[in-house]
Amino acid sequence: MRIGFIGLGQMGRPIAENVIAAGHRVTVWNRTLEKTKGLEATVASGPADAARAAEVLVTMLSDDRAVEEVLFGREGAATALPEGAVHASMSTIGVPFSRRLAVAHANAGQGYVACPVFGRPDMAAEGQLRVLAAGDPGAVERCRSLFKAVGQGVIELGEAPERANVVKLLGNFLIASAIESLAEAFAVGRKHGLDAERLNEIYAGLFGSPIYRSYGGLVAEGRYQPAGFALEHGLKDTRLALEAADEAEAPMPVAGVIHDHYLSAVARGLGDHDWAALGQVVAEAAGLRTD
Amino acid sequence: MRIGFIGLGQMGRPIAENVIAAGHRVTVWNRTLEKTKGLEATVASGPADAARAAEVLVTMLSDDRAVEEVLFGREGAATALPEGAVHASMSTIGVPFSRRLAVAHANAGQGYVACPVFGRPDMAAEGQLRVLAAGDPGAVERCRSLFKAVGQGVIELGEAPERANVVKLLGNFLIASAIESLAEAFAVGRKHGLDAERLNEIYAGLFGSPIYRSYGGLVAEGRYQPAGFALEHGLKDTRLALEAADEAEAPMPVAGVIHDHYLSAVARGLGDHDWAALGQVVAEAAGLRTD
Amino acid sequence: MRIGFIGLGQMGRPIAENVIAAGHRVTVWNRTLEKTKGLEATVASGPADAARAAEVLVTMLSDDRAVEEVLFGREGAATALPEGAVHASMSTIGVPFSRRLAVAHANAGQGYVACPVFGRPDMAAEGQLRVLAAGDPGAVERCRSLFKAVGQGVIELGEAPERANVVKLLGNFLIASAIESLAEAFAVGRKHGLDAERLNEIYAGLFGSPIYRSYGGLVAEGRYQPAGFALEHGLKDTRLALEAADEAEAPMPVAGVIHDHYLSAVARGLGDHDWAALGQVVAEAAGLRTD
Amino acid sequence: MRIGFIGLGQMGRPIAENVIAAGHRVTVWNRTLEKTKGLEATVASGPADAARAAEVLVTMLSDDRAVEEVLFGREGAATALPEGAVHASMSTIGVPFSRRLAVAHANAGQGYVACPVFGRPDMAAEGQLRVLAAGDPGAVERCRSLFKAVGQGVIELGEAPERANVVKLLGNFLIASAIESLAEAFAVGRKHGLDAERLNEIYAGLFGSPIYRSYGGLVAEGRYQPAGFALEHGLKDTRLALEAADEAEAPMPVAGVIHDHYLSAVARGLGDHDWAALGQVVAEAAGLRTD
Repeated sequence: MRIGFIGLGQMGRPIAENVIAAGHRVTVWNRTLEKTKGLEATVASGPADAARAAEVLVTMLSDDRAVEEVLFGREGAATALPEGAVHASMSTIGVPFSRRLAVAHANAGQGYVACPVFGRPDMAAEGQLRVLAAGDPGAVERCRSLFKAVGQGVIELGEAPERANVVKLLGNFLIASAIESLAEAFAVGRKHGLDAERLNEIYAGLFGSPIYRSYGGLVAEGRYQPAGFALEHGLKDTRLALEAADEAEAPMPVAGVIHDHYLSAVARGLGDHDWAALGQVVAEAAGLRTD
Repeated sequence: MRIGFIGLGQMGRPIAENVIAAGHRVTVWNRTLEKTKGLEATVASGPADAARAAEVLVTMLSDDRAVEEVLFGREGAATALPEGAVHASMSTIGVPFSRRLAVAHANAGQGYVACPVFGRPDMAAEGQLRVLAAGDPGAVERCRSLFKAVGQGVIELGEAPERANVVKLLGNFLIASAIESLAEAFAVGRKHGLDAERLNEIYAGLFGSPIYRSYGGLVAEGRYQPAGFALEHGLKDTRLALEAADEAEAPMPVAGVIHDHYLSAVARGLGDHDWAALGQVVAEAAGLRTD
Repeated sequence: MRIGFIGLGQMGRPIAENVIAAGHRVTVWNRTLEKTKGLEATVASGPADAARAAEVLVTMLSDDRAVEEVLFGREGAATALPEGAVHASMSTIGVPFSRRLAVAHANAGQGYVACPVFGRPDMAAEGQLRVLAAGDPGAVERCRSLFKAVGQGVIELGEAPERANVVKLLGNFLIASAIESLAEAFAVGRKHGLDAERLNEIYAGLFGSPIYRSYGGLVAEGRYQPAGFALEHGLKDTRLALEAADEAEAPMPVAGVIHDHYLSAVARGLGDHDWAALGQVVAEAAGLRTD
Repeated sequence: MRIGFIGLGQMGRPIAENVIAAGHRVTVWNRTLEKTKGLEATVASGPADAARAAEVLVTMLSDDRAVEEVLFGREGAATALPEGAVHASMSTIGVPFSRRLAVAHANAGQGYVACPVFGRPDMAAEGQLRVLAAGDPGAVERCRSLFKAVGQGVIELGEAPERANVVKLLGNFLIASAIESLAEAFAVGRKHGLDAERLNEIYAGLFGSPIYRSYGGLVAEGRYQPAGFALEHGLKDTRLALEAADEAEAPMPVAGVIHDHYLSAVARGLGDHDWAALGQVVAEAAGLRTD
């Protein structure tokens, strides 16, 4: 299949490698050219060029704005993408924006599948992502070999594309919420004389969850650099979860707490730390040393 | 070993059965006599009577007040317990109260081990609880065969008994926090047209945690009766976690959210529902039907 | 002065009357024509028509979307407004949107003054509003006779127009925060057997503030209809305050609480009640009857 | 009237002076003797000595524990106070504790009036406090000349003494809530380039409230020392308000936010600053410099 692939960041690059390895003919584009090096792919001169001959156009970018720019900005991919081709949007974007994309592509006779993923860069490299997919069944069908190349299975969520984005955003909220809760527990525990790494072992055992174990470990050790997933993206995702909640008229008070802590972290210069650095905000609020 | 055992509720009864099955000579007491039926144990006439000949006195009661009553009330166990004997306090009690117990027992020449447990009644029946133990090493040693009878291993937490209570309370907070977060996610998801049970499957897979799967299931189905663990006890434990946080000067904003929701649940008559009924409070706040 | 005036709602209509009474030549436009009846003003055929000959164009609309539509939609006012004329934006709009308006008008050689107001409809009728004004000094100067006609004085906030919007949004947040706090206090007081109206008297005396007295009165009596200011607008303003906070990287946890309560109110059908109906959300959370 | 007066702190000393000036025969006791200097009063050798001959015993102490110590500790006042005499408890104490005092005094044939006050030390000096009084009508009557000496009028709240404490605690919550909200607004405003003192002027005008003006001024200037009312007492009062809310089964989420901020302030060494130092916690969370 001819695939246009836009966005070769921490997640996009290993995904693209797997797509290429699966035998697809891939044309890539990235804002900074050097990220394209070493890929057995055609390098496009711009987003439009990457889209022009694609049967499926993959975008894997950091936020709504980046996707908007690439699709509708100068040399944008949206008008270049052939009628009948499908835009497979893997980025973690917002619900209203995803709905707008659905309309824009439908108006242009193009397909649109929202297909964000769960998993971090190492899982992307191993083709072990979980793909959440929603959209027109025919369009989803067209993406199946793509999904197979990148993940350990597809969770299908029906015809309304934005629902895949809802599920992704709520999933990230649940992870952030686990981090925040562990951070609060460890801070109180430490001030009662307990060792945070010991606590992490106990609670990882209680929950039996790799997510608790790994994020709890980062918080217990206060190890927030280098970032697996940057805190400023955690803030962005929390903001998008709250946007989805607001639209749905359903309060999320715990998401509010997390949003405030991420905002405070960014205000204090921790935007490039791992999103587990909620632990640092919480520890400092308790008067604990964090260095 | 001669064991006094006070408190034969949902947790206490199966624990007592396992202690008896392990070959200990047990004298039991319970506020309502009928709970003692069918146990191969001596039935005491009061708390003091249960404590009088004990090498280890186990208490497994619902809250600080119940423990205080049984120890220091009329015919209380505290003065009857022989010098050199050990009080093994399995109840989920507060940190300052546990510290007071430590002092009282030390003054009376008795040992004191705080040994709350993780696990629900079915795990108690199978002897699969996790025991958290802290206290004087000699006293902990004396309880080892007891712990072996009830659990799958002991997590030892040092000489300050109240630290075991801290770890237990923070563990319950983490579970309540997972429930609250799932409830928020499901409410938003439902209002975006997603099915809560489907979401639960997805997130249980993401976290790989039996706790997420089981509590998420209760919330997804809105099945809060009969209660595995009553909401009013969840409120009590959250209050005790906040008390421990207050004493440690460490804020727990997520615990604050949970406390408010539990309080609201009790105010609206849900105190005897499962503590997962956070899901109902959250759903109603989103204007969702819950019946 | 020739004034175009768009938006004749609860606030806009009495303001327009005062502007006309001050002797200006006014051309009005409103989405529903009947609101224009009885005004000694020319009735425009559309937004563009209202703007065409204006020296100052006033907009007083309910939200960002309405202003965007009127300016940039079909027959929009933005292109019709003459070079050198000034757009006086009295609506309570968001900070990023206000900044966008400033750029758009500057690009078109038009002036732009953000001039939201404090005060409710009765104060508008009496010309007793407080005007918050920011923008280019020359443009502000051009609006001075307008401001004189509608308010008891102008609070000038410098050259960056969006700062006037920030001050307005934070002011509304402070009022909502006072309502929320009173609601929490009254709920607890009532459940301790105290009378809410009595409490309101006491706290109105303590604060010496007409705002506490009047909103506290609404909450104490549970009188939320008819709405002086609709709750759905209170939600919108809280959302815009949080947007301004997010952009500024400054957490507002109390605004988060209020946002959640407004969202819950709208989800339960209270969007058209007075924004003081925070009191109903809080009372119901405490299990109090509210009818 | 013969008055025993225990507690000569920032509030107690000026109150005692006014009681003496009103012509009562006063016997004082204070933990540190030097605070008694210069008063035209008999100095007691202990709490019991101060109570022994009193018709009314006034206590004005910092918290539940201090009152408990003075009444029921060594040489405690409770047993020394004559039958028929009245304990006028002016301290800001908790609701359950006040209820316990009522029972204890009733059992001893003594009267008990809860009579906490609104007002700061300067208002105490001028005899301008607002007294909140509740208790048996006869006992309240006995205190009338006392109340006249210290305040500008009495707000009577019925026969259940603890209701006066509820009203006091909720009043302090409302003040703390105003401080917190102003702090949030100023932080956001400052980060949008606005001057906090200017904002304070605007909002003090909007609310028309001396409380907003004065506390807003402290926050705007970041002037938290010397403390008019120490933050650690603000924390204590918030804790007592939450205790009253918990008992009443009525959530107070804004009180939760304030509690967390006070706790964080104390954890970071600000316990002896003014309780307006909520402003510092909020500013630091926004990454603003506060020195």
